[in-house]
Amino acid sequence: MRCEILCVGTELLLGDTLNTNAQFLAKELSFLGIGVFHQSVVGDNPQRVKEALEIAFSRSDIVITTGGLGPTKDDLTKEVCSQFFNKKLVLNEEAIQRLKELFSKRGLEVSESNAKQAYLPEGCIPLQNNNGTAPGCIINDNNKILIMLPGPPREVHPMFKDDVVPYLKTLSDNIFVSKVLRVFGIGESYAADKISEFLDNENPTVAPYAKDNEVIFRITANSKSEQEALKLIEPVEEEVRKRLGDYIYGEGEKTLEHVVSELLISRNLTIATAESCTGGLLAGKLINASGISSVFLEGAITYSNEAKIKRLNVRKDTLDKFGAVSEEVAREMAEGIAKAAEAKIGVSTTGIAGPGGGTESKPVGLVYVGIYYNNETYVKRLNLSGNRDRIRNRAVMEAIDMLRGILKD
Amino acid sequence: MRCEILCVGTELLLGDTLNTNAQFLAKELSFLGIGVFHQSVVGDNPQRVKEALEIAFSRSDIVITTGGLGPTKDDLTKEVCSQFFNKKLVLNEEAIQRLKELFSKRGLEVSESNAKQAYLPEGCIPLQNNNGTAPGCIINDNNKILIMLPGPPREVHPMFKDDVVPYLKTLSDNIFVSKVLRVFGIGESYAADKISEFLDNENPTVAPYAKDNEVIFRITANSKSEQEALKLIEPVEEEVRKRLGDYIYGEGEKTLEHVVSELLISRNLTIATAESCTGGLLAGKLINASGISSVFLEGAITYSNEAKIKRLNVRKDTLDKFGAVSEEVAREMAEGIAKAAEAKIGVSTTGIAGPGGGTESKPVGLVYVGIYYNNETYVKRLNLSGNRDRIRNRAVMEAIDMLRGILKD
Repeated sequence: MRCEILCVGTELLLGDTLNTNAQFLAKELSFLGIGVFHQSVVGDNPQRVKEALEIAFSRSDIVITTGGLGPTKDDLTKEVCSQFFNKKLVLNEEAIQRLKELFSKRGLEVSESNAKQAYLPEGCIPLQNNNGTAPGCIINDNNKILIMLPGPPREVHPMFKDDVVPYLKTLSDNIFVSKVLRVFGIGESYAADKISEFLDNENPTVAPYAKDNEVIFRITANSKSEQEALKLIEPVEEEVRKRLGDYIYGEGEKTLEHVVSELLISRNLTIATAESCTGGLLAGKLINASGISSVFLEGAITYSNEAKIKRLNVRKDTLDKFGAVSEEVAREMAEGIAKAAEAKIGVSTTGIAGPGGGTESKPVGLVYVGIYYNNETYVKRLNLSGNRDRIRNRAVMEAIDMLRGILKD
Repeated sequence: MRCEILCVGTELLLGDTLNTNAQFLAKELSFLGIGVFHQSVVGDNPQRVKEALEIAFSRSDIVITTGGLGPTKDDLTKEVCSQFFNKKLVLNEEAIQRLKELFSKRGLEVSESNAKQAYLPEGCIPLQNNNGTAPGCIINDNNKILIMLPGPPREVHPMFKDDVVPYLKTLSDNIFVSKVLRVFGIGESYAADKISEFLDNENPTVAPYAKDNEVIFRITANSKSEQEALKLIEPVEEEVRKRLGDYIYGEGEKTLEHVVSELLISRNLTIATAESCTGGLLAGKLINASGISSVFLEGAITYSNEAKIKRLNVRKDTLDKFGAVSEEVAREMAEGIAKAAEAKIGVSTTGIAGPGGGTESKPVGLVYVGIYYNNETYVKRLNLSGNRDRIRNRAVMEAIDMLRGILKD
């Protein structure tokens, strides 16, 4: 079964919008084991949309479109696609009902151009939209399958996951089950080397995905039942876990900061941060986790030496002798903020994020992370590369992962 | 002159990589006034690359490819394209020389697979790569023009801007000159309404681009000389500036935080921040600007009431009477941090970023920004929408823009 992705929208051709829908759909389809050999983009032009459909169906069984389902006169994907399959557009009762409810909440009537969205090709499977006004739909015409989705990603994602994935699964006897393992602190190629023989596995497949600051391994099995698929995954997962050990920090959708926040919250460990080079980004990241307010007491951004002395009680001597970017200062910062905030844990960062400020002995990218916990202070020295932004973000993730390591023991 | 973009890479079809090259090229081409009606993606498969070239040249004069120029056996764009035009691949002396120098720096010889990259189609214009190992090239075969670029964006961008743009300009007698105005604090559609009659302008064109937290207007003139083009831009720019007034915070590539940081640094205005709901992101954003350390004294992340009292001297009374998310607390926070840090400016945020914590009178998205400056304290009440992340980021940008407004006066 071959599928291709056709994104419709002049904003994509002008480069105004980044085509994240294509990536999202490509990834989801690959998880389902459905081959995608082509992606295309055309503008909101009836002739070119029609030609694109002809080309797509000459080489693929399933075509998924995004965009062009809205209320304006530019939105014509549905009209062109219906003509392509020789189907009339008919009013979908549920869709118009939903529109009426949505608009009446705002005290408005459904205008004619908005009502246009509730018309769908006769005989299609409607895909109601819980996050916007334009429903999508599926046409299956003699096993040529066309799936029309709206344009905005926040409408596309749930519609695809909730309605299209179950539909696509009915097209095949096999089901695909995936398990995601999340890895931090080891590069993609090094991690892949450790489990290299699994990367050529056919069932389950094991695929690495490098993200900004981490690597994700997805183990996907293809079988007749979920139970059987899970049984295929089990031994491979076990071996991958054995080889990658503590580099694996979690599974599924949960990010590193959420894993660590949950550890803090569940064990009622209060925390405070003292940041120099990361300048608030560490606290900002931790505070991403909703519910963190019960344990996150305070953060200090002590960019200047004066602030380090005044707020964190770092000794002037230490600053003079070792410099602000040093193991000793990181240590005193972590201890100082824990004491000042009366927190069980104190985390500090001090480093040189660049582009200026580097020297031979303290180059750009040198960052110390300090953690005070249980009457002990741990300091880690990092040599990071990249631009200012990357160094700061990487230092934040390293600090959070170091905290994970300490709390785990 | 019609151009299309063909991105080659199985990683794009699997959704492992987001296709930012397509957006970059689309935007750059639109600035040059070159029409793009199609974008496509195919995998590293010779047959499908060849078919994609046939389709592309059947409808466009120029095809720009990205990807598939590297050293591995998967990289076959150049081979397929050369065959397509019946050209042999010949060794490019400059390219192999560059490879040798690059590898000898690492103490290595150029392997056979790496040397492959230095072979280019006979008669092409080579595009040497200053940021990677694979050169690109331009083939002009009877006015069918094929431009091959590497895959990594950090190689594509400079190669396109430095070498391809000048080449494309030679294809037309006209030159395009652009001016970018950056706008904050007004939505795209409202901003566009204010200058609506210019949006249909033919020369210069005026195009709005909505970014995460701002709107950019690009005025592009097309003329025989730069001087003439600038003359066309001038009256339109003047009128746009008149209509959008203070919403325009800057021009070119300079972001809002850089504009404000430069104001602070040039006027030697010391600053300190006190953040609740934005939890460090405001300081993090300001500290993006290199050189800020001379004026950024200190930041406090006072998530809890205790921290607000202890660090910022917010009165317990005020917290009890008005609640942490209130105009009064924002005011005391801004004044408190300025005093504690002995800074000329104190900036505070307090709000409800969600998803929990909202009430009827204080809903999710309610944020107060306080600024103390010159013995006066200003507080702005914001009602923001979106998820936690969006609310926090938006509040940060609003605070920075409010600071711009106050400093400007």
